[in-house]
Amino acid sequence: MAEPLKIGIAGLGNVGAHTFKLVQRHGDLLARRCGRPLAVTAVSARDRDKDRGVDLGDVNWLDNPLDLAGHNEADVIVELIGGDEGVAYDLVKASLESGRHVVTANKALLAKHGGELFTLAEERNVALKYEAAVAGGIPIIKGIREGLAGNAVEGVYGILNGTCNFILSEMADTGRAFEDVLKEAQERGFAEADPTFDVDGIDAAHKISLLAALAYGGLPQLPGDIRGIRNITPMDIRYAEKLGYRIKLLGIARNTDNGIELSVEPCLVPEDEPISAVDGSLNAVYVDGDFVGNTLFVGHGAGGDPTASAVVADIIDIARGNLGFAMGVPAMGLKPLPTADTNMREGSWYLRLMVLDKPGVIADIAAILRDYDLSLESVLQHSRAPDKTVPVVLTSHESNEGDMRAALAKIAALDAVVEEPHMMRIETFGK
Amino acid sequence: MAEPLKIGIAGLGNVGAHTFKLVQRHGDLLARRCGRPLAVTAVSARDRDKDRGVDLGDVNWLDNPLDLAGHNEADVIVELIGGDEGVAYDLVKASLESGRHVVTANKALLAKHGGELFTLAEERNVALKYEAAVAGGIPIIKGIREGLAGNAVEGVYGILNGTCNFILSEMADTGRAFEDVLKEAQERGFAEADPTFDVDGIDAAHKISLLAALAYGGLPQLPGDIRGIRNITPMDIRYAEKLGYRIKLLGIARNTDNGIELSVEPCLVPEDEPISAVDGSLNAVYVDGDFVGNTLFVGHGAGGDPTASAVVADIIDIARGNLGFAMGVPAMGLKPLPTADTNMREGSWYLRLMVLDKPGVIADIAAILRDYDLSLESVLQHSRAPDKTVPVVLTSHESNEGDMRAALAKIAALDAVVEEPHMMRIETFGK
Repeated sequence: MAEPLKIGIAGLGNVGAHTFKLVQRHGDLLARRCGRPLAVTAVSARDRDKDRGVDLGDVNWLDNPLDLAGHNEADVIVELIGGDEGVAYDLVKASLESGRHVVTANKALLAKHGGELFTLAEERNVALKYEAAVAGGIPIIKGIREGLAGNAVEGVYGILNGTCNFILSEMADTGRAFEDVLKEAQERGFAEADPTFDVDGIDAAHKISLLAALAYGGLPQLPGDIRGIRNITPMDIRYAEKLGYRIKLLGIARNTDNGIELSVEPCLVPEDEPISAVDGSLNAVYVDGDFVGNTLFVGHGAGGDPTASAVVADIIDIARGNLGFAMGVPAMGLKPLPTADTNMREGSWYLRLMVLDKPGVIADIAAILRDYDLSLESVLQHSRAPDKTVPVVLTSHESNEGDMRAALAKIAALDAVVEEPHMMRIETFGK
Repeated sequence: MAEPLKIGIAGLGNVGAHTFKLVQRHGDLLARRCGRPLAVTAVSARDRDKDRGVDLGDVNWLDNPLDLAGHNEADVIVELIGGDEGVAYDLVKASLESGRHVVTANKALLAKHGGELFTLAEERNVALKYEAAVAGGIPIIKGIREGLAGNAVEGVYGILNGTCNFILSEMADTGRAFEDVLKEAQERGFAEADPTFDVDGIDAAHKISLLAALAYGGLPQLPGDIRGIRNITPMDIRYAEKLGYRIKLLGIARNTDNGIELSVEPCLVPEDEPISAVDGSLNAVYVDGDFVGNTLFVGHGAGGDPTASAVVADIIDIARGNLGFAMGVPAMGLKPLPTADTNMREGSWYLRLMVLDKPGVIADIAAILRDYDLSLESVLQHSRAPDKTVPVVLTSHESNEGDMRAALAKIAALDAVVEEPHMMRIETFGK
């Protein structure tokens, strides 16, 4: 059998330790599948004595992860340190420059420096792979780059953050408020002490930027519109259900005549779509290709074992000699994607207003919408409570987002409208 | 740019014509993604003058598809003729022997001759690829072979036949009987004039045999247990719904201590699983890996455009030099999978009996189940109709299939049981 592929792992947190465990446990199976053994020969992490549940045996320990880039005992460097600058950036760059392949789970790094790093990998004729950076164990990078490579992609839509999906699912199941569920998620270790990165949509934004770059052949860039889930109330979830929808935080990248519509936002999703049943911490990605139609991938988007599965899939690709283009096309000369102003988007919209229940309020709202030529699909106002604050929920027919936002600003200024209105996209996945 | 990859297509039916159209329409995109152009340079089909909606231009026309195997103008032969013997077999074999790569959508051929043909491809150092043979446009072959290759697979579960899924979905939506919906499906072109191949589970059996061989590293072989959907009644669908399930025809290949449990059968699937919302002619495959957990792939399982997407994905792999092992491991020396006797399976079961509504009937049934140590989860008997025939629906706790079938044979022999009982597996996907 051929020489082993030698692997150096930088970072032995959850994913790193499970990657080590996987390679150890499935040694024979992986050797058969790769045509050569895989061997972790060097590691670097902060604390040598921490119990990680794996026996590191006689693997080389390097105190400085940057030393992996010059280490003779590594053909592939697995970067699991994290962060969009600093050691992670330095290590990936130095490893590529030294002619080593790199596997990383670092979406923030690639969203920021992808253009430079992918180009560098191509110049040095090595692989820079990142299956684990998006949607954990789901092989969505390979799915788009190879499995659906015959298609011009028309849209990519993903539930890309397990923390948000867990919170929204739990809110839907129990009727509890966002803050309550977030607190529980933090106590159970499903959410970070500082949840900003997840609940404000930034993590999902990194991921959709990578998927968009891959699907449309451009440099990764963050969406201009990033909305998280802090504003979602149990009331919105209940109204959405009444209307036949579930609320999901989606990363969206759709190809239109105006450019790529790129966003992260909570959306109403039809309840008969399989993606609406993707609950808890699961992730899911819809890819709409011009020949294949809608294709959905669902699975565990985080966690040590699923993410290790993705890291090792990349290593297997390298061991098999399947190096390919990281972005599906040559990275050299790639330009930023031509993004569209989301105010130019067409779509149907959900509006939730809190109004004083007085005669004429609905008429005033309807008049404003009429002035913008916006037509309503439904109006829900379930309870009467004269002179008290009540919710009014409206859904629109297909209409322009900018017009809708302009109308909503006028509606918000009405005396009877007592809170900032909520507006969400009703997403039907290009159907 | 590098030399074009020259493609010969045998068979210009729906899939062949759409494959031609895809390569033609996306010429620039594919050249960028492959690093070289793709060019269809030769075709062979029965009728040269048929209108296929594509302009064949100056492509070489060969009256005898076997001539493609010796044609200088083809590096890759795409076999879309079909059938598990005859011209398809001869062409694939001759093409591989001549050192040409082969892409095929022919599940029946590979289920029967896969061992020989995969080995031949390896001997000649060429690719034999078959993404389009299973689940149409869904990149499930690549998903298992590469995307999830870090895992020991524990189970594969698929909705693999669009005709059956269409019929079952339509029965569920409308309450109509199998024969009615089949007839409509035939009239609308969704089902063949002779529907045996689809509705009796044979097509799904070919597909699950390929998925099992790939997932577990063995030669493809047909399941011993193949059950179709002819026996499913609107009553079963209604009862399943009452119990919180949908009925789906599944191909199943699960790894157990007894061997690989391989079957095609209608199953009850929990309604909160995303796969239960996979309706109409869509296909879906669950892969349960020991690290990744459950991963679901959903998409269009048939049709010219989606299947062409899969065919072209294979061609792109070849153009990119990603040849790999067709079965994920070397085919040489592969043995038939060690299959398990399905009577040894554990599971929960749905039983539907038609009984004369007399005192003591349920007691007699319960006594037989008790004698086999089988415990019930639920008993449904909604209407009373003394001395008339009424349905009784039972679901069991986890129990042995052989015991359940033995008990059911005794139950069937009771005087008050007036029809052959229905028994279906309740499938929870290893959870």
